[in-house]
Amino acid sequence: MAEGQPAKKAKLDVKYELLYWPSMPGRGEFVRLALEASGVPYKDTANQEDNGIQKMLAVLKDTQSHAPVLCPPLLRVHGDDGPLIISQTPNILLYLGDHEPVAPATNDKYLVHQYALTALDLTNEAHNVHHPVAISQYYDDQKPEAVRAAAEFRGERIPKFFGYFDRALTYNKSSSGGDDRGYAYLVGDKVTYADTTVWQVVDGVSFAFPAKVKEMREKGECKELWAFYDGLKKEEWLSSYLESSRRMKYSDGIFRYYKELDV
Amino acid sequence: MAEGQPAKKAKLDVKYELLYWPSMPGRGEFVRLALEASGVPYKDTANQEDNGIQKMLAVLKDTQSHAPVLCPPLLRVHGDDGPLIISQTPNILLYLGDHEPVAPATNDKYLVHQYALTALDLTNEAHNVHHPVAISQYYDDQKPEAVRAAAEFRGERIPKFFGYFDRALTYNKSSSGGDDRGYAYLVGDKVTYADTTVWQVVDGVSFAFPAKVKEMREKGECKELWAFYDGLKKEEWLSSYLESSRRMKYSDGIFRYYKELDV
Repeated sequence: MAEGQPAKKAKLDVKYELLYWPSMPGRGEFVRLALEASGVPYKDTANQEDNGIQKMLAVLKDTQSHAPVLCPPLLRVHGDDGPLIISQTPNILLYLGDHEPVAPATNDKYLVHQYALTALDLTNEAHNVHHPVAISQYYDDQKPEAVRAAAEFRGERIPKFFGYFDRALTYNKSSSGGDDRGYAYLVGDKVTYADTTVWQVVDGVSFAFPAKVKEMREKGECKELWAFYDGLKKEEWLSSYLESSRRMKYSDGIFRYYKELDV
Repeated sequence: MAEGQPAKKAKLDVKYELLYWPSMPGRGEFVRLALEASGVPYKDTANQEDNGIQKMLAVLKDTQSHAPVLCPPLLRVHGDDGPLIISQTPNILLYLGDHEPVAPATNDKYLVHQYALTALDLTNEAHNVHHPVAISQYYDDQKPEAVRAAAEFRGERIPKFFGYFDRALTYNKSSSGGDDRGYAYLVGDKVTYADTTVWQVVDGVSFAFPAKVKEMREKGECKELWAFYDGLKKEEWLSSYLESSRRMKYSDGIFRYYKELDV
């Protein structure tokens, strides 16, 4: 580089910038966890800068300098060729998997994406439980429907998805050295964004439906899943993240606790 | 190859096998359209073999020879190292984009994935409209809720998503040579699986909400989207597919026509 020419990357001291709503885990949490697992520095702009939310909104409004984006989370990747904007949660995870050590380079990368997509499907269903009729209307205006939706979610959907993740972990355990750790990862023998994404939806569902999850654990259902969930939580990178201020509390987002929806 | 040694690929005469429910477009249609656009031969097993559905169910039940899969569509890729099973619709599209000419190899591949994921989000919402409360219950048991859900879907969700695709096409038009064709693709100047996926959801929504779509067209809303939709439909690969028996009619799947939900 010629003398006196400023380094392009001096604009931001980290490569990755998460642009999302502040003060809530939300869909941004799936991105945060993949970034935390990869160990790469990142900026959570709306939570770390005073006017961070304005920066996110500016990207959302901009239809000139990059392809239009519909909604956050967004990942802004700073590089020599200018910033790249990636949106759609599974797409951001895919990008991180292609560029950071949270997915393999083999065909197993499609298995990682598959599990992450399935965990995000369950996330959507968990949201639909408290807003079955209309996203734009209040919970109280669709409470009777939410109670009906929750009955199906607890009775059929949680067992279906958790049972699936349990089978996937069981399948991978024999070939991955999971026995040494006491628990398996979903793909191979390293943490991938499949693990972080499944972990987060299990954590969110456990927050929203604590009685249901307690019952499953007590009945011994999905043992591999709980071994995985508890085991990952104790790994240094995750436990230190969960204790940090970067991890935010659940509130009125995707995963909500309403006593009448649990039981 | 040594004389007398059978070719491995003799097991199946095509590389790609779609395993999905027969006699309906469903989520399999997104895979079919990407395969049709890529021009590669494929087998739609449940529709082309007498016992095809059993082959799909066998893969779903098998938790030994490959990682467990939750539900169809599945893509079975036949290769020298044995078959590879890919599941989750966006993941199948990603795989096809990585291996066939329906996505670029540059960073634009993430833009293709983003648009496809967004179209599939709208697909999920279109399904939720007629089953807002519980997937396992009949439409008639959630009809009042469906009417409320449809009002929001028509009034807010269709305009939001269609408007977004319209902006995306407008953004790409100037740089893609779309003016020569009279319409733009979503990314670059070749058909990608973003185009096939957005086309299918626009087609499905047009089937399910014909009055709403007619109104949008008459009001001149989303002009770029309709130019794209009509233009793609006339392209040789798509028009010949739509006239073939490979294209199935909508019935009681994701996209359903109920008069009370349209208007």
